[in-house]
Amino acid sequence: MTATFGATSTSSSASGSIDLGPAAYLKSKEEGHEQPLAPDFVSADDFSPLEVAYDFGTVRRSDIESGPRNIWRYKKLLPVPSNVDQIPNTEPGCTKLIRADRLAQELGVRRIWVKDDTGNPTHSFKDRVVAVALAAAREFGFDVLACPSTGNLANAVASAAARAGWDSVVLIPSSLEQAKVLTTAVYDGSLIAVDGNYDDVNRLATELAAENENWAFVNVNVRPYYSEGSKTLAFEVAEQLGWRIPEQIVVPIASGSQLTKVDKGFTELSEVGLVEPSPYTVFGAQATGCSPVSSAFKSGLDVVQPTKPDTIARSLAIGNPADGPYVLDTVNRTGGAIEDVTDEEVVEGIKLLARTEGIFAETAGGVTVACAKKLIEAGKIDPDAETVLLITGDGLKTLDAVQDSVGPKATVTPTVGAVREALGQ
Amino acid sequence: MTATFGATSTSSSASGSIDLGPAAYLKSKEEGHEQPLAPDFVSADDFSPLEVAYDFGTVRRSDIESGPRNIWRYKKLLPVPSNVDQIPNTEPGCTKLIRADRLAQELGVRRIWVKDDTGNPTHSFKDRVVAVALAAAREFGFDVLACPSTGNLANAVASAAARAGWDSVVLIPSSLEQAKVLTTAVYDGSLIAVDGNYDDVNRLATELAAENENWAFVNVNVRPYYSEGSKTLAFEVAEQLGWRIPEQIVVPIASGSQLTKVDKGFTELSEVGLVEPSPYTVFGAQATGCSPVSSAFKSGLDVVQPTKPDTIARSLAIGNPADGPYVLDTVNRTGGAIEDVTDEEVVEGIKLLARTEGIFAETAGGVTVACAKKLIEAGKIDPDAETVLLITGDGLKTLDAVQDSVGPKATVTPTVGAVREALGQ
Repeated sequence: MTATFGATSTSSSASGSIDLGPAAYLKSKEEGHEQPLAPDFVSADDFSPLEVAYDFGTVRRSDIESGPRNIWRYKKLLPVPSNVDQIPNTEPGCTKLIRADRLAQELGVRRIWVKDDTGNPTHSFKDRVVAVALAAAREFGFDVLACPSTGNLANAVASAAARAGWDSVVLIPSSLEQAKVLTTAVYDGSLIAVDGNYDDVNRLATELAAENENWAFVNVNVRPYYSEGSKTLAFEVAEQLGWRIPEQIVVPIASGSQLTKVDKGFTELSEVGLVEPSPYTVFGAQATGCSPVSSAFKSGLDVVQPTKPDTIARSLAIGNPADGPYVLDTVNRTGGAIEDVTDEEVVEGIKLLARTEGIFAETAGGVTVACAKKLIEAGKIDPDAETVLLITGDGLKTLDAVQDSVGPKATVTPTVGAVREALGQ
Repeated sequence: MTATFGATSTSSSASGSIDLGPAAYLKSKEEGHEQPLAPDFVSADDFSPLEVAYDFGTVRRSDIESGPRNIWRYKKLLPVPSNVDQIPNTEPGCTKLIRADRLAQELGVRRIWVKDDTGNPTHSFKDRVVAVALAAAREFGFDVLACPSTGNLANAVASAAARAGWDSVVLIPSSLEQAKVLTTAVYDGSLIAVDGNYDDVNRLATELAAENENWAFVNVNVRPYYSEGSKTLAFEVAEQLGWRIPEQIVVPIASGSQLTKVDKGFTELSEVGLVEPSPYTVFGAQATGCSPVSSAFKSGLDVVQPTKPDTIARSLAIGNPADGPYVLDTVNRTGGAIEDVTDEEVVEGIKLLARTEGIFAETAGGVTVACAKKLIEAGKIDPDAETVLLITGDGLKTLDAVQDSVGPKATVTPTVGAVREALGQ
């Protein structure tokens, strides 16, 4: 961990030898200023977030369909080198899209699809964004993968670095639950517990990113590339539906990045001609205990007031979501809505999905299901149109959420009669 | 739960209306006696276990390659109806086969492939066998899915029943860890805790199977169909290798069923002409704390002495493995070996796989990796031939195994200097 970033990345960048596939330049989200592809995340012109802009050229369905069964089948739509699928990586994506007829029946709508991202390598959508971040970071000459995290991201970074043979530095609050510590530590990167809260850890990450030029903090200095990974959720849903955009989609909101990138994904598919352009409506889901974007939406505001999170949906507990205003743009533009649900409703959402479809989601999934239910009941989701729910993480990681409300139906002696009685036979 | 099995299954069976695809009859494993397809598991003639026999007809690679991305692409090789993929199910299988070059390098061999079954719906290979059991059980007229279990099987049965809209009855020892209770109870079937050990629970299951004729106990009365699901591991490995059989494979041993079915799968692929017949060697892996088959192998016996399990590898802790003798047959016939490893080696195996390949396996996976290491060191696995390791379950389910041996590298104050010091920079 002693190589300096400047020595490697600047030279490769300056010599034009980096290969980020169709990625052409970075563009500021506010005023559209352009700057060259580099590990930058804030516009030098207007200080707004930077986003990757592309020159896609021709992309055919057959290019994608003949590709690998993971996110790299979409490499011509991502900021990654053309040989990305040849280098050892966790191969995330191509998770199942489940036709959830039993859930749809319970909710009284015609058709629901569940995009089940629990099937990813470390069982959350974070494997997608981390894989793209690592691929881009390699091109820029980084050789350490890093992040601040309280859960899913820590798992994904530590696992991806291990597969790639990179060192990793993962910063967590020292108060983190042991299960989340273990599921990161097992990959044997440099897991560092920090005496402080998540804000302290996050601030420390930004300082470390500035001082260690070979460290790619996936959600800090290579964030523009990282966040593009979420587009693959949109790409997969469209391909799995037979190359068309669903009419309605419900996306959980943490930083808000995923929701805006799902929208960007659908837009790009239309632009390059992989799908027929068709209208779609994007809905956002938050936990009431951390609902700054939902609050802003309901108040008709276009700015988001930071809040102090207090919810069991910890993977969504970002009180000052960076992409909040862009989420509001997307939802308003597509005619959607944003809803939020109590922790009790989150648990009911987890149980509803498990009972009807056999899918055990983490709390974020409970938020999505419960918000969908509320949006249906309020008439905001059209019951005659189809709806896709993004289930972004696995219930095995948030067992505490259900521990007080599920358990055996009965405890019995080992006799047939006792079982019969327990079942009311 | 009041319909009687006799009324439904006998009639459909007698009328010849059941569709189990290529399955032709049941055959006793000892003397090859034949009997009609039915929910029977012990031969009426020689009292040995029954196995499904087939009339495969023509099966082309293109039939399979154009099928769904789950085990049903192999439906022409399984005892399931031809429309099995049209009925809601958990869609297990098509998990990744990872080229594990970093692990191979550490172990000093040319090529290792890891078949990573943590990617299944409930994160173990049990989703495969349960899906086949449910599909066959539906044909026989059952409408309740049941099992005795202490872990992975309970999850898989409860989830599969939920997706299918069936009731489930899952029997567990009342002493089971809360995490395993929660990951089953969340699907809202009839989870019954039994005051007793696993043997008590197992005996109770057999009694209940006899008394409740609409209950399909996946690993009791429909076991011949259930166990065929393990063949899909062999099918997938061969297809993922470009339609060829690997030279060596290491399979963990619990009841021994999986190992014998992987062998059966390779044999059937050759028989129907999907692969060129080629020699392969099957190795078995056990935990020393429950190693009756390894002990028999090492002693040159062809019978297995029951043992009382005492190992952290609980998903392999079957002291009296039903298929033990058949495992010995397979391993001896193919020129393989069976090894066993201590609990400490199991943990090292888990950590080795996580560190080199970013895959977090449950204890059974640690057994497989550690036994492979030992077999390589002993010169029993050929280092110049390729080896496939079956990783059958997820580390998230056995966190207790690693909790004393992994953790943060350091706990620091939130300053750059403290992180530097912790990393020895």
